Amino acid sequence: MCSGDDKNCPEYEKHKREFMGELDHERRSFMKSAFATAGGTAALGAGGISLVTPTMSAAAEKHQPSDRSYHHLPATADTVHWGYFSKNLKPQVEIDSGDFVTIEALTHHANDDAERMIKGDPGAESVYLWTKDKKGVDRRGAGPMDASLYGRGAGEGLGVHICTGPVYIRGAEPGDVLEVRIIDVAPRGSRNPKYAGKAFGSNAAAWWGFHFKDLITEPKEREVITIYEVDATGERNWAQAAYNFQWTPQTDPYGVVHKTIDYPGVPVDHATVKENHGILNGIRIPIRPHFGVIGLAPKEADMVDSIPPSYTGGNIDNWRIGKGATMYYPVAVDGGLLSVGDPHASQGDSELCGTAIECSLNGTFQLILHKKADLAGTALEELDYPMLETQDEWLVHGFSFANYLAELGEKAQSDIYSKSSVDLALRDAFRKMRHFLMNTKGLTEDEAISLITVGVDFGITQVVDGNWGVHAVIRKDIFAGVPA
Amino acid sequence: MCSGDDKNCPEYEKHKREFMGELDHERRSFMKSAFATAGGTAALGAGGISLVTPTMSAAAEKHQPSDRSYHHLPATADTVHWGYFSKNLKPQVEIDSGDFVTIEALTHHANDDAERMIKGDPGAESVYLWTKDKKGVDRRGAGPMDASLYGRGAGEGLGVHICTGPVYIRGAEPGDVLEVRIIDVAPRGSRNPKYAGKAFGSNAAAWWGFHFKDLITEPKEREVITIYEVDATGERNWAQAAYNFQWTPQTDPYGVVHKTIDYPGVPVDHATVKENHGILNGIRIPIRPHFGVIGLAPKEADMVDSIPPSYTGGNIDNWRIGKGATMYYPVAVDGGLLSVGDPHASQGDSELCGTAIECSLNGTFQLILHKKADLAGTALEELDYPMLETQDEWLVHGFSFANYLAELGEKAQSDIYSKSSVDLALRDAFRKMRHFLMNTKGLTEDEAISLITVGVDFGITQVVDGNWGVHAVIRKDIFAGVPA
Repeated sequence: MCSGDDKNCPEYEKHKREFMGELDHERRSFMKSAFATAGGTAALGAGGISLVTPTMSAAAEKHQPSDRSYHHLPATADTVHWGYFSKNLKPQVEIDSGDFVTIEALTHHANDDAERMIKGDPGAESVYLWTKDKKGVDRRGAGPMDASLYGRGAGEGLGVHICTGPVYIRGAEPGDVLEVRIIDVAPRGSRNPKYAGKAFGSNAAAWWGFHFKDLITEPKEREVITIYEVDATGERNWAQAAYNFQWTPQTDPYGVVHKTIDYPGVPVDHATVKENHGILNGIRIPIRPHFGVIGLAPKEADMVDSIPPSYTGGNIDNWRIGKGATMYYPVAVDGGLLSVGDPHASQGDSELCGTAIECSLNGTFQLILHKKADLAGTALEELDYPMLETQDEWLVHGFSFANYLAELGEKAQSDIYSKSSVDLALRDAFRKMRHFLMNTKGLTEDEAISLITVGVDFGITQVVDGNWGVHAVIRKDIFAGVPA
Repeated sequence: MCSGDDKNCPEYEKHKREFMGELDHERRSFMKSAFATAGGTAALGAGGISLVTPTMSAAAEKHQPSDRSYHHLPATADTVHWGYFSKNLKPQVEIDSGDFVTIEALTHHANDDAERMIKGDPGAESVYLWTKDKKGVDRRGAGPMDASLYGRGAGEGLGVHICTGPVYIRGAEPGDVLEVRIIDVAPRGSRNPKYAGKAFGSNAAAWWGFHFKDLITEPKEREVITIYEVDATGERNWAQAAYNFQWTPQTDPYGVVHKTIDYPGVPVDHATVKENHGILNGIRIPIRPHFGVIGLAPKEADMVDSIPPSYTGGNIDNWRIGKGATMYYPVAVDGGLLSVGDPHASQGDSELCGTAIECSLNGTFQLILHKKADLAGTALEELDYPMLETQDEWLVHGFSFANYLAELGEKAQSDIYSKSSVDLALRDAFRKMRHFLMNTKGLTEDEAISLITVGVDFGITQVVDGNWGVHAVIRKDIFAGVPA
């Protein structure tokens, strides 16, 4: 259960050596790439039209050390926080603007099939450790530690994602904007020799899904887990179903019975479920590896449920937040405090049944800080929402409530679950896209509204994360003819 | 004002010759193409995986004459119905299954700039004719002819689209499915010599838009028309803004003042508006020529407002319903009674401000009837919603109310405007996609729900047509590995 981080482990020294060796190997592979060598930053930026102009790049570089550093943040019981964001969390790593960091992200659904997704994986084993006496990570969610609300367990599962971090970005202050470049995303292969070369993910059709009260076949109001297989060698761009099973009441190691999927990381006893193999025969799900959760700590509360997305990002659940994409987030607290979690192999717009193909991934990021003082007159001035840039598109993310913590008052964290609608999220996405076009592109309101109507596509990001989401997509080439 | 169809016109013979000459020219051009020659039908079907299998094709061909006919339906005051569908309309043309038909569709916004979109165009002039004594097409909308509700004009503008048709498909009966293949779509160039080679469209940011109560600059609650220019020669795949203007009260030729855009086809007196040129400078709107309205007559009512889409199609407003796409509609009345209107040069998903780039287009269609008796066990069995097939995707269209005429009772046609939400449309789209996957693809409900969640994208089609729309998109290649 020790991944080189538990000094009480009898084999601590051995595990530590293994872990460091592994880390070194990854580090060396990475250093061979062009990204971390001199000029790497410039090369990345030159790939397409970006919100970040050369002038902005130069301004940002003034706050960066001349040498880029590379960091690796493994996912272990010590480096993750489960189910919440907090501005009070101790940083796991402190980095400079411009640095690169590989962050391991573990899916919080790995215990749906521990054989495939945990066994033999020291990091995952340390996080998921749960005996009758001990949990590797006790708090799961932003709720009370004594489970006095629902009796589910510490943190009450009010928030479910295993988040790795936070990363402290030196010099980041409220009002700044953090640019997060997603350099690479790779599936975390199964460490069980039986499944070498494969990675796995779990899709839970759960009680919080949009479909749940609307089933047409019996038994009604069932929850169903579908385990998907992903090729970890990178040769196949699709996932396929391995099997599914209906959730049965699961008794956790502390003796609490979970009739529904109400607490993250409950080990599923496969002796109690009926696995249906041969399902979705021949069906190939296009993979879209991405991170459901990338977020900074919000300033409004000490403990924030990881489920509803908000102005500092978090659980946006947009499958476009994958390799090659760049996110921009407003910084709300000193250091920014970036965490990454909820890795997905794939998801459709809406994430209808409650979850994606939840599948552990490793991500490599470059983090670039844009200081508030440098933002006047730029595309990032006054950015107070999370914005996505891909090679060909810009996207804004609308939520039912743009900043639900500030808007809904003291009970925001519970009220948000009953107040959302797609209509509200569309309203917010419209307003954000209008803001983007007026502020960043200098259009009048009439120009912006016409362009939004004839050239912007609105899609449903998710309807399962408390604060529902709609994204608005605008193609960059719409501006190809605009005079400089 | 005569396009060769008004025997009282002093120049009737001349106009008739001109019209026929033009029609013949188009007909000859068309006949040169491969589509109408022997084997054309088969060639079209072979382009990709289709819902229509070779067996279904063969079954359909039994109901088709051995020779295909080609028809041309011009848009004139005599061939259009404005603002409504009706099962009682006299067909404009009667065709056999398998036949081809070119249908001219006129935008109902042409009078926003008659100089560019009507002048010199005999068909458009005949439709838009409106003097103090006479209208080319009196009824505009499904409302009362005496305008006793709002005083706007005949039909009250309860329905706005100029619909060309209906086309009667011989042998079509309730329970059958009509396959509508969109073979070609072309912009209708300006007939004003001053604008040769160009086509134009109008985008109205109107009182029924999603943005209207949410403006941030003054004057609040303004309506704005933006005129776009489209290259009619086909060399440029983008539209650009020509100018915009704020709507001012317009007095129609009968003396009714229209303070807002409340009645279709009111001529805008450009002496009363301020044209702003040089707007959206350099911005290129990707063109997506398509028909906002393609629909069959519903059976539920005699006069049906053309605005809310429903189970027989109509005003779906999905920009993917363009060249190369195929729509499938359930037939509700004898002959099907297909009409086409609301042509668009482009639109984004949501059509946020109320309209697209409303731009007259000519479409060429092949209509293929699938008889109910042939549908058992096929992908089209029990199809009771309009379905779209593109080269790479299948789409279902969800509405706030799948069949609002049946669901909302006697006041359906007014109630629909206050009862819609995106949430309801998403619910309907989910149910239809589940139906498609279970019925057509033979999946269990659990398989369908998981696949919908991880492989289907939900987008917002429109929020401005009374019955709001959400589409669900599934890629065909997801099924590439399914055993035959």
